[in-house]
Amino acid sequence: MRYTRVVHHGRPRWARLEGGAQDGVAHLLSGSPVDGDPVDVATVPLDGLGRLPPVVPGVFYAVGLNYRAHLDRARELGLAGRPEVGYRASNALVGDGAAIRVPPDLTGQLEAEGELVAVIGAPLRRASREQARAAVFGWTIGNDVSARDWQRTDSSLLRAKNSDTFKPMGPWIETDVDPMAQTTTVRVNGVPAASFATGDMIFDPWEHLVEASRYVTFHPGDVLWLGTGAACPITAGDVVEVEITGIGTLTNPVE
Amino acid sequence: MRYTRVVHHGRPRWARLEGGAQDGVAHLLSGSPVDGDPVDVATVPLDGLGRLPPVVPGVFYAVGLNYRAHLDRARELGLAGRPEVGYRASNALVGDGAAIRVPPDLTGQLEAEGELVAVIGAPLRRASREQARAAVFGWTIGNDVSARDWQRTDSSLLRAKNSDTFKPMGPWIETDVDPMAQTTTVRVNGVPAASFATGDMIFDPWEHLVEASRYVTFHPGDVLWLGTGAACPITAGDVVEVEITGIGTLTNPVE
Repeated sequence: MRYTRVVHHGRPRWARLEGGAQDGVAHLLSGSPVDGDPVDVATVPLDGLGRLPPVVPGVFYAVGLNYRAHLDRARELGLAGRPEVGYRASNALVGDGAAIRVPPDLTGQLEAEGELVAVIGAPLRRASREQARAAVFGWTIGNDVSARDWQRTDSSLLRAKNSDTFKPMGPWIETDVDPMAQTTTVRVNGVPAASFATGDMIFDPWEHLVEASRYVTFHPGDVLWLGTGAACPITAGDVVEVEITGIGTLTNPVE
Repeated sequence: MRYTRVVHHGRPRWARLEGGAQDGVAHLLSGSPVDGDPVDVATVPLDGLGRLPPVVPGVFYAVGLNYRAHLDRARELGLAGRPEVGYRASNALVGDGAAIRVPPDLTGQLEAEGELVAVIGAPLRRASREQARAAVFGWTIGNDVSARDWQRTDSSLLRAKNSDTFKPMGPWIETDVDPMAQTTTVRVNGVPAASFATGDMIFDPWEHLVEASRYVTFHPGDVLWLGTGAACPITAGDVVEVEITGIGTLTNPVE
Protein backbone atom coordinates (compact mmCIF):
# COMPACT_ATOMS: atom_id res chain seq x y z
CA MET A 1 0.00 0.00 0.00
CA ARG A 2 1.04 3.56 -0.63
CA TYR A 3 0.46 6.34 1.89
CA THR A 4 1.34 10.01 1.91
CA ARG A 5 0.16 13.39 3.10
CA VAL A 6 -1.65 15.74 0.72
CA VAL A 7 -3.18 19.19 0.91
CA HIS A 8 -6.98 19.00 0.49
CA HIS A 9 -9.07 22.17 0.81
CA GLY A 10 -6.05 23.87 2.36
CA ARG A 11 -5.57 21.24 5.07
CA PRO A 12 -2.86 18.57 5.41
CA ARG A 13 -4.47 15.13 5.21
CA TRP A 14 -3.20 11.57 5.28
CA ALA A 15 -4.15 9.58 2.18
CA ARG A 16 -3.88 6.07 0.80
CA LEU A 17 -3.04 6.18 -2.90
CA GLU A 18 -4.15 4.02 -5.79
CA GLY A 19 -2.87 4.29 -9.37
CA GLY A 20 -0.07 6.52 -10.66
CA ALA A 21 1.09 9.93 -9.51
CA GLN A 22 -0.88 11.66 -12.31
CA ASP A 23 -3.96 9.47 -12.90
CA GLY A 24 -4.44 7.93 -9.47
CA VAL A 25 -6.86 8.58 -6.64
CA ALA A 26 -6.32 9.50 -3.01
CA HIS A 27 -8.45 7.90 -0.33
CA LEU A 28 -8.42 10.56 2.38
CA LEU A 29 -7.97 9.00 5.83
CA SER A 30 -9.35 9.82 9.25
CA GLY A 31 -5.84 9.93 10.71
CA SER A 32 -2.27 8.69 10.48
CA PRO A 33 -1.73 5.10 9.32
CA VAL A 34 1.80 5.13 10.78
CA ASP A 35 0.64 4.60 14.35
CA GLY A 36 -3.08 4.10 13.97
CA ASP A 37 -5.74 2.30 11.96
CA PRO A 38 -7.61 5.08 10.16
CA VAL A 39 -10.72 4.67 8.01
CA ASP A 40 -11.35 6.06 4.51
CA VAL A 41 -13.23 9.34 4.66
CA ALA A 42 -13.42 10.37 0.99
CA THR A 43 -11.89 9.55 -2.39
CA VAL A 44 -10.58 12.33 -4.62
CA PRO A 45 -8.37 12.54 -7.75
CA LEU A 46 -4.69 12.67 -6.80
CA ASP A 47 -3.98 15.14 -9.60
CA GLY A 48 -4.42 18.64 -8.29
CA LEU A 49 -3.83 17.83 -4.63
CA GLY A 50 -0.89 19.54 -2.98
CA ARG A 51 1.87 17.09 -2.13
CA LEU A 52 3.61 17.14 1.25
CA PRO A 53 6.51 15.17 2.68
CA PRO A 54 4.85 11.81 3.47
CA VAL A 55 5.58 12.22 7.16
CA VAL A 56 6.90 14.97 9.45
CA PRO A 57 9.25 13.08 11.75
CA GLY A 58 9.63 13.77 15.44
CA VAL A 59 13.29 12.93 14.92
CA PHE A 60 14.94 12.84 11.51
CA TYR A 61 17.70 10.21 11.76
CA ALA A 62 20.27 9.81 8.98
CA VAL A 63 23.22 7.55 8.26
CA GLY A 64 26.39 9.02 6.73
CA LEU A 65 28.73 6.80 4.70
CA ASN A 66 26.87 3.49 4.33
CA TYR A 67 27.56 2.05 0.87
CA ARG A 68 30.19 -0.50 -0.03
CA ALA A 69 31.38 1.80 -2.81
CA HIS A 70 32.55 4.12 -0.01
CA LEU A 71 33.98 1.38 2.22
CA ASP A 72 37.60 2.56 1.84
CA ARG A 73 36.59 6.11 2.73
CA ALA A 74 34.48 4.84 5.63
CA ARG A 75 37.43 2.80 6.96
CA GLU A 76 39.72 5.80 6.58
CA LEU A 77 37.32 7.82 8.75
CA GLY A 78 36.95 4.92 11.19
CA LEU A 79 33.24 4.59 10.37
CA ALA A 80 33.03 1.00 9.19
CA GLY A 81 33.37 -0.54 12.65
CA ARG A 82 29.79 -0.10 13.88
CA PRO A 83 26.51 1.04 12.36
CA GLU A 84 26.45 4.75 13.15
CA VAL A 85 23.32 6.86 12.92
CA GLY A 86 23.28 10.68 12.92
CA TYR A 87 20.41 13.09 12.50
CA ARG A 88 19.14 16.05 10.47
CA ALA A 89 16.72 18.95 11.02
CA SER A 90 13.12 18.71 9.79
CA ASN A 91 12.90 22.34 8.62
CA ALA A 92 14.63 21.23 5.41
CA LEU A 93 11.94 18.72 4.36
CA VAL A 94 9.85 19.31 1.23
CA GLY A 95 7.61 16.96 -0.72
CA ASP A 96 7.63 15.53 -4.22
CA GLY A 97 7.51 18.29 -6.83
CA ALA A 98 8.65 21.10 -4.53
CA ALA A 99 11.62 23.25 -5.55
CA ILE A 100 15.09 22.81 -4.10
CA ARG A 101 16.13 26.45 -3.64
CA VAL A 102 19.81 27.30 -3.99
CA PRO A 103 20.89 29.74 -1.22
CA PRO A 104 21.96 33.06 -2.79
CA ASP A 105 25.39 32.95 -1.12
CA LEU A 106 26.16 29.32 -2.00
CA THR A 107 29.77 28.66 -2.97
CA GLY A 108 31.02 25.37 -4.40
CA GLN A 109 29.10 22.39 -5.64
CA LEU A 110 25.54 21.43 -4.74
CA GLU A 111 24.99 17.67 -4.96
CA ALA A 112 21.98 15.35 -4.91
CA GLU A 113 22.16 12.07 -2.98
CA GLY A 114 19.44 9.49 -3.57
CA GLU A 115 18.62 7.58 -0.39
CA LEU A 116 16.35 4.85 0.87
CA VAL A 117 14.29 6.01 3.88
CA ALA A 118 12.76 3.80 6.57
CA VAL A 119 9.58 5.15 8.21
CA ILE A 120 9.18 3.90 11.79
CA GLY A 121 5.73 2.69 12.86
CA ALA A 122 6.22 1.46 16.44
CA PRO A 123 8.30 2.40 19.50
CA LEU A 124 11.74 0.81 19.40
CA ARG A 125 14.21 0.66 22.30
CA ARG A 126 17.00 -1.91 22.81
CA ALA A 127 15.50 -3.73 19.85
CA SER A 128 16.38 -7.11 18.41
CA ARG A 129 16.77 -7.41 14.65
CA GLU A 130 13.30 -9.00 14.48
CA GLN A 131 11.77 -6.17 16.51
CA ALA A 132 13.49 -3.64 14.25
CA ARG A 133 12.08 -5.36 11.15
CA ALA A 134 8.58 -5.39 12.63
CA ALA A 135 8.77 -1.71 13.61
CA VAL A 136 9.34 -0.37 10.07
CA PHE A 137 6.00 0.87 8.74
CA GLY A 138 7.23 1.35 5.18
CA TRP A 139 9.80 2.86 2.86
CA THR A 140 10.15 6.11 1.00
CA ILE A 141 12.84 8.04 -0.90
CA GLY A 142 15.01 10.95 0.19
CA ASN A 143 17.28 13.35 -1.66
CA ASP A 144 20.04 14.39 0.77
CA VAL A 145 20.97 17.65 -1.01
CA SER A 146 24.41 18.76 0.18
CA ALA A 147 26.48 21.94 -0.22
CA ARG A 148 30.04 20.63 -0.30
CA ASP A 149 31.94 23.84 0.56
CA TRP A 150 29.86 24.39 3.68
CA GLN A 151 30.12 20.71 4.61
CA ARG A 152 33.91 21.15 4.69
CA THR A 153 34.13 24.57 6.36
CA ASP A 154 31.37 24.55 8.99
CA SER A 155 31.41 22.81 12.35
CA SER A 156 27.74 21.82 12.01
CA LEU A 157 25.83 20.54 8.98
CA LEU A 158 23.07 23.13 9.39
CA ARG A 159 23.45 25.10 6.15
CA ALA A 160 25.36 22.35 4.27
CA LYS A 161 22.62 19.75 4.60
CA ASN A 162 19.69 21.41 6.40
CA SER A 163 19.07 24.66 4.56
CA ASP A 164 15.34 24.99 3.84
CA THR A 165 14.26 22.70 0.92
CA PHE A 166 17.50 20.62 1.05
CA LYS A 167 15.67 17.44 2.08
CA PRO A 168 13.05 16.38 -0.49
CA MET A 169 11.23 13.23 0.68
CA GLY A 170 8.53 11.23 -1.11
CA PRO A 171 6.60 10.67 -3.27
CA TRP A 172 4.88 8.32 -0.81
CA ILE A 173 5.49 5.55 1.72
CA GLU A 174 5.39 2.05 0.18
CA THR A 175 4.60 -0.65 2.72
CA ASP A 176 4.97 -3.70 0.43
CA VAL A 177 8.52 -3.81 -0.91
CA ASP A 178 11.80 -5.57 -0.15
CA PRO A 179 14.06 -2.50 -0.09
CA MET A 180 17.27 -4.55 -0.26
CA ALA A 181 16.35 -6.04 -3.65
CA GLN A 182 15.87 -2.72 -5.48
CA THR A 183 17.90 -0.31 -7.63
CA THR A 184 18.36 3.39 -6.90
CA THR A 185 18.77 5.66 -9.94
CA VAL A 186 19.38 9.42 -9.90
CA ARG A 187 18.54 11.37 -13.06
CA VAL A 188 19.39 14.99 -13.76
CA ASN A 189 17.23 16.51 -16.51
CA GLY A 190 16.14 13.01 -17.50
CA VAL A 191 19.72 11.75 -17.97
CA PRO A 192 20.89 8.97 -15.62
CA ALA A 193 23.65 10.38 -13.41
CA ALA A 194 24.06 7.47 -10.97
CA SER A 195 22.65 4.00 -10.41
CA PHE A 196 23.41 1.55 -7.63
CA ALA A 197 21.95 -1.46 -5.85
CA THR A 198 19.81 -0.04 -3.02
CA GLY A 199 20.80 -2.94 -0.78
CA ASP A 200 24.59 -2.67 -1.26
CA MET A 201 25.02 -1.19 2.23
CA ILE A 202 27.88 -1.65 4.71
CA PHE A 203 25.22 -2.05 7.44
CA ASP A 204 21.59 -2.75 6.54
CA PRO A 205 18.62 -0.75 7.91
CA TRP A 206 17.89 -3.17 10.74
CA GLU A 207 21.50 -3.27 11.96
CA HIS A 208 21.34 0.53 12.23
CA LEU A 209 18.05 0.41 14.15
CA VAL A 210 19.34 -2.27 16.54
CA GLU A 211 22.54 -0.32 17.31
CA ALA A 212 20.96 3.16 17.57
CA SER A 213 18.09 1.86 19.73
CA ARG A 214 20.67 0.99 22.41
CA TYR A 215 20.84 4.76 23.02
CA VAL A 216 17.66 6.35 21.66
CA THR A 217 13.97 5.44 21.54
CA PHE A 218 12.50 5.49 18.05
CA HIS A 219 8.89 6.68 17.89
CA PRO A 220 6.19 6.21 15.23
CA GLY A 221 6.73 8.73 12.45
CA ASP A 222 10.49 9.00 12.96
CA VAL A 223 12.47 8.44 9.77
CA LEU A 224 15.90 6.92 9.13
CA TRP A 225 17.70 7.95 5.94
CA LEU A 226 20.14 5.26 4.92
CA GLY A 227 22.95 6.95 3.01
CA THR A 228 23.74 7.08 -0.67
CA GLY A 229 25.79 5.12 -3.17
CA ALA A 230 26.65 8.17 -5.29
CA ALA A 231 26.48 11.98 -5.25
CA CYS A 232 25.39 13.86 -8.39
CA PRO A 233 26.15 17.54 -9.10
CA ILE A 234 23.04 19.70 -9.56
CA THR A 235 22.56 23.37 -10.35
CA ALA A 236 19.74 25.91 -10.67
CA GLY A 237 17.48 25.07 -13.62
CA ASP A 238 17.97 21.30 -13.29
CA VAL A 239 15.26 18.80 -12.51
CA VAL A 240 16.49 15.96 -10.30
CA GLU A 241 14.75 12.61 -9.96
CA VAL A 242 15.52 9.83 -7.50
CA GLU A 243 13.91 6.52 -8.43
CA ILE A 244 13.95 3.43 -6.27
CA THR A 245 12.36 0.47 -8.05
CA GLY A 246 9.43 -0.93 -6.10
CA ILE A 247 8.83 2.40 -4.36
CA GLY A 248 8.54 5.22 -6.94
CA THR A 249 10.23 8.40 -8.16
CA LEU A 250 10.90 11.59 -6.20
CA THR A 251 11.12 14.58 -8.57
CA ASN A 252 12.24 18.10 -7.66
CA PRO A 253 13.28 21.13 -9.70
CA VAL A 254 16.32 23.15 -8.59
CA GLU A 255 15.73 26.91 -8.44
CA MET B 1 4.93 35.05 32.94
CA ARG B 2 5.91 31.42 33.33
CA TYR B 3 4.59 28.69 31.05
CA THR B 4 5.25 24.98 30.84
CA ARG B 5 3.64 21.66 30.00
CA VAL B 6 2.35 19.40 32.75
CA VAL B 7 0.64 16.03 32.95
CA HIS B 8 -2.93 16.41 34.27
CA HIS B 9 -5.19 13.34 34.49
CA GLY B 10 -2.73 11.51 32.23
CA ARG B 11 -2.78 14.13 29.48
CA PRO B 12 -0.09 16.66 28.50
CA ARG B 13 -1.45 20.18 29.06
CA TRP B 14 -0.03 23.66 28.68
CA ALA B 15 -0.11 25.67 31.90
CA ARG B 16 0.65 29.16 33.16
CA LEU B 17 2.36 29.01 36.55
CA GLU B 18 2.07 31.22 39.61
CA GLY B 19 4.14 30.85 42.79
CA GLY B 20 7.07 28.47 43.37
CA ALA B 21 7.73 25.01 42.02
CA GLN B 22 6.43 23.38 45.22
CA ASP B 23 3.71 25.71 46.52
CA GLY B 24 2.48 27.29 43.27
CA VAL B 25 -0.57 26.77 41.11
CA ALA B 26 -0.96 25.84 37.45
CA HIS B 27 -3.60 27.58 35.36
CA LEU B 28 -4.34 24.93 32.76
CA LEU B 29 -4.67 26.49 29.28
CA SER B 30 -6.87 25.76 26.29
CA GLY B 31 -3.83 25.46 24.02
CA SER B 32 -0.25 26.53 23.38
CA PRO B 33 0.74 30.08 24.35
CA VAL B 34 3.80 29.89 22.09
CA ASP B 35 1.85 30.49 18.89
CA GLY B 36 -1.65 31.19 20.16
CA ASP B 37 -3.64 33.10 22.75
CA PRO B 38 -5.16 30.41 24.97
CA VAL B 39 -7.62 30.98 27.80
CA ASP B 40 -7.47 29.60 31.35
CA VAL B 41 -9.50 26.40 31.68
CA ALA B 42 -8.86 25.37 35.30
CA THR B 43 -6.52 26.10 38.19
CA VAL B 44 -4.85 23.23 40.07
CA PRO B 45 -1.98 22.88 42.59
CA LEU B 46 1.37 22.59 40.78
CA ASP B 47 2.61 20.06 43.34
CA GLY B 48 1.72 16.56 42.18
CA LEU B 49 1.41 17.39 38.48
CA GLY B 50 3.79 15.55 36.17
CA ARG B 51 6.38 17.87 34.68
CA LEU B 52 7.25 17.74 30.97
CA PRO B 53 9.83 19.59 28.89
CA PRO B 54 8.20 23.03 28.51
CA VAL B 55 7.98 22.60 24.74
CA VAL B 56 8.59 19.80 22.22
CA PRO B 57 10.41 21.59 19.41
CA GLY B 58 9.84 20.90 15.72
CA VAL B 59 13.56 21.56 15.35
CA PHE B 60 16.00 21.54 18.25
CA TYR B 61 18.73 24.04 17.34
CA ALA B 62 21.91 24.28 19.42
CA VAL B 63 25.06 26.39 19.38
CA GLY B 64 28.43 24.77 20.10
CA LEU B 65 31.29 26.85 21.52
CA ASN B 66 29.73 30.23 22.30
CA TYR B 67 31.30 31.60 25.48
CA ARG B 68 34.21 34.02 25.72
CA ALA B 69 35.91 31.65 28.17
CA HIS B 70 36.25 29.31 25.17
CA LEU B 71 37.24 31.96 22.65
CA ASP B 72 40.78 30.60 22.16
CA ARG B 73 39.42 27.10 21.55
CA ALA B 74 36.74 28.49 19.22
CA ARG B 75 39.38 30.40 17.24
CA GLU B 76 41.54 27.30 17.06
CA LEU B 77 38.59 25.41 15.54
CA GLY B 78 37.81 28.32 13.22
CA LEU B 79 34.42 28.82 14.92
CA ALA B 80 34.68 32.42 16.08
CA GLY B 81 34.26 33.95 12.63
CA ARG B 82 30.47 33.72 12.32
CA PRO B 83 27.58 32.75 14.59
CA GLU B 84 27.16 29.04 13.85
CA VAL B 85 24.07 27.10 14.84
CA GLY B 86 23.84 23.30 14.87
CA TYR B 87 21.04 21.02 15.99
CA ARG B 88 20.16 18.11 18.26
CA ALA B 89 17.53 15.34 18.35
CA SER B 90 14.35 15.76 20.40
CA ASN B 91 14.23 12.14 21.62
CA ALA B 92 16.74 13.14 24.32
CA LEU B 93 14.51 15.79 25.97
CA VAL B 94 13.20 15.28 29.49
CA GLY B 95 11.62 17.73 31.92
CA ASP B 96 12.57 19.13 35.30
CA GLY B 97 12.94 16.37 37.89
CA ALA B 98 13.34 13.52 35.40
CA ALA B 99 16.35 11.22 35.68
CA ILE B 100 19.39 11.49 33.44
CA ARG B 101 20.10 7.81 32.75
CA VAL B 102 23.72 6.77 32.22
CA PRO B 103 23.97 4.29 29.30
CA PRO B 104 25.23 0.90 30.58
CA ASP B 105 28.15 0.86 28.13
CA LEU B 106 29.29 4.44 28.76
CA THR B 107 33.05 4.91 28.85
CA GLY B 108 34.78 8.12 29.90
CA GLN B 109 33.37 11.20 31.55
CA LEU B 110 29.76 12.35 31.52
CA GLU B 111 29.46 16.12 31.85
CA ALA B 112 26.66 18.59 32.53
CA GLU B 113 26.53 21.86 30.58
CA GLY B 114 24.16 24.57 31.79
CA GLU B 115 22.71 26.53 28.89
CA LEU B 116 20.32 29.39 28.20
CA VAL B 117 17.55 28.35 25.78
CA ALA B 118 15.52 30.65 23.52
CA VAL B 119 11.97 29.48 22.70
CA ILE B 120 10.78 30.76 19.33
CA GLY B 121 7.23 32.15 19.10
CA ALA B 122 6.92 33.38 15.51
CA PRO B 123 8.16 32.37 12.05
CA LEU B 124 11.59 33.77 11.31
CA ARG B 125 13.29 33.82 7.90
CA ARG B 126 16.00 36.22 6.72
CA ALA B 127 15.36 38.13 9.93
CA SER B 128 16.73 41.43 11.09
CA ARG B 129 18.02 41.71 14.65
CA GLU B 130 14.77 43.47 15.63
CA GLN B 131 12.66 40.71 14.05
CA ALA B 132 14.75 38.09 15.86
CA ARG B 133 14.21 39.88 19.18
CA ALA B 134 10.45 40.08 18.59
CA ALA B 135 10.23 36.38 17.62
CA VAL B 136 11.57 35.01 20.93
CA PHE B 137 8.58 33.94 23.04
CA GLY B 138 10.61 33.36 26.19
CA TRP B 139 13.60 31.71 27.83
CA THR B 140 14.23 28.44 29.58
CA ILE B 141 17.18 26.36 30.79
CA GLY B 142 18.88 23.35 29.22
CA ASN B 143 21.41 20.84 30.48
CA ASP B 144 23.45 19.67 27.47
CA VAL B 145 24.62 16.37 28.99
CA SER B 146 27.61 15.09 27.01
CA ALA B 147 29.56 11.81 26.92
CA ARG B 148 33.09 12.93 26.14
CA ASP B 149 34.56 9.63 24.86
CA TRP B 150 31.77 9.20 22.33
CA GLN B 151 31.98 12.86 21.36
CA ARG B 152 35.61 12.25 20.37
CA THR B 153 35.24 8.85 18.70
CA ASP B 154 31.93 9.02 16.83
CA SER B 155 31.25 10.78 13.54
CA SER B 156 27.82 11.95 14.75
CA LEU B 157 26.77 13.30 18.15
CA LEU B 158 23.86 10.84 18.44
CA ARG B 159 24.91 8.84 21.48
CA ALA B 160 27.37 11.47 22.84
CA LYS B 161 24.75 14.21 23.16
CA ASN B 162 21.39 12.72 22.13
CA SER B 163 21.08 9.50 24.09
CA ASP B 164 17.62 9.35 25.70
CA THR B 165 17.40 11.67 28.77
CA PHE B 166 20.60 13.58 27.86
CA LYS B 167 18.73 16.85 27.28
CA PRO B 168 16.87 18.03 30.39
CA MET B 169 14.98 21.27 29.66
CA GLY B 170 12.88 23.40 32.03
CA PRO B 171 11.58 24.02 34.60
CA TRP B 172 9.42 26.47 32.62
CA ILE B 173 9.55 29.24 30.00
CA GLU B 174 10.00 32.72 31.50
CA THR B 175 8.76 35.47 29.20
CA ASP B 176 9.82 38.48 31.29
CA VAL B 177 13.59 38.39 31.75
CA ASP B 178 16.66 40.01 30.22
CA PRO B 179 18.70 36.83 29.64
CA MET B 180 21.95 38.74 29.03
CA ALA B 181 21.93 40.25 32.54
CA GLN B 182 21.76 36.94 34.44
CA THR B 183 24.13 34.43 36.05
CA THR B 184 24.22 30.70 35.25
CA THR B 185 25.23 28.40 38.11
CA VAL B 186 25.63 24.62 37.96
CA ARG B 187 25.49 22.70 41.23
CA VAL B 188 26.28 19.03 41.75
CA ASN B 189 24.79 17.60 44.96
CA GLY B 190 24.14 21.15 46.11
CA VAL B 191 27.78 22.23 45.73
CA PRO B 192 28.49 24.97 43.15
CA ALA B 193 30.57 23.43 40.32
CA ALA B 194 30.51 26.31 37.85
CA SER B 195 29.20 29.86 37.62
CA PHE B 196 29.38 32.29 34.73
CA ALA B 197 27.68 35.37 33.34
CA THR B 198 24.86 34.08 31.12
CA GLY B 199 25.42 36.92 28.67
CA ASP B 200 29.19 36.47 28.24
CA MET B 201 28.69 35.01 24.75
CA ILE B 202 30.89 35.34 21.67
CA PHE B 203 27.69 35.89 19.65
CA ASP B 204 24.41 36.76 21.38
CA PRO B 205 21.11 34.91 20.78
CA TRP B 206 19.84 37.38 18.19
CA GLU B 207 23.05 37.30 16.15
CA HIS B 208 22.63 33.51 15.94
CA LEU B 209 18.99 33.81 14.86
CA VAL B 210 19.81 36.44 12.23
CA GLU B 211 22.61 34.34 10.71
CA ALA B 212 20.85 30.95 10.87
CA SER B 213 17.62 32.40 9.45
CA ARG B 214 19.50 33.15 6.24
CA TYR B 215 19.33 29.39 5.61
CA VAL B 216 16.51 27.95 7.71
CA THR B 217 13.01 29.04 8.72
CA PHE B 218 12.41 29.05 12.46
CA HIS B 219 8.90 28.04 13.49
CA PRO B 220 6.95 28.64 16.73
CA GLY B 221 8.02 26.06 19.30
CA ASP B 222 11.52 25.62 17.90
CA VAL B 223 14.24 26.06 20.52
CA LEU B 224 17.78 27.40 20.31
CA TRP B 225 20.23 26.25 22.99
CA LEU B 226 22.98 28.82 23.36
CA GLY B 227 26.09 26.97 24.54
CA THR B 228 27.73 26.77 27.92
CA GLY B 229 30.43 28.62 29.84
CA ALA B 230 31.61 25.52 31.71
CA ALA B 231 31.26 21.73 31.75
CA CYS B 232 30.88 19.89 35.07
CA PRO B 233 31.59 16.17 35.61
CA ILE B 234 28.58 14.15 36.82
CA THR B 235 28.12 10.51 37.71
CA ALA B 236 25.34 8.12 38.71
CA GLY B 237 23.90 9.06 42.12
CA ASP B 238 24.49 12.80 41.66
CA VAL B 239 21.79 15.44 41.54
CA VAL B 240 22.60 18.23 39.08
CA GLU B 241 20.99 21.66 39.15
CA VAL B 242 21.29 24.41 36.55
CA GLU B 243 20.10 27.79 37.82
CA ILE B 244 19.79 30.89 35.69
CA THR B 245 18.82 33.90 37.79
CA GLY B 246 15.59 35.46 36.59
CA ILE B 247 14.42 32.17 35.08
CA GLY B 248 14.62 29.36 37.66
CA THR B 249 16.39 26.10 38.47
CA LEU B 250 16.41 22.89 36.43
CA THR B 251 17.04 19.88 38.70
CA ASN B 252 17.73 16.32 37.55
CA PRO B 253 19.08 13.22 39.31
CA VAL B 254 21.65 11.06 37.49
CA GLU B 255 20.88 7.32 37.51
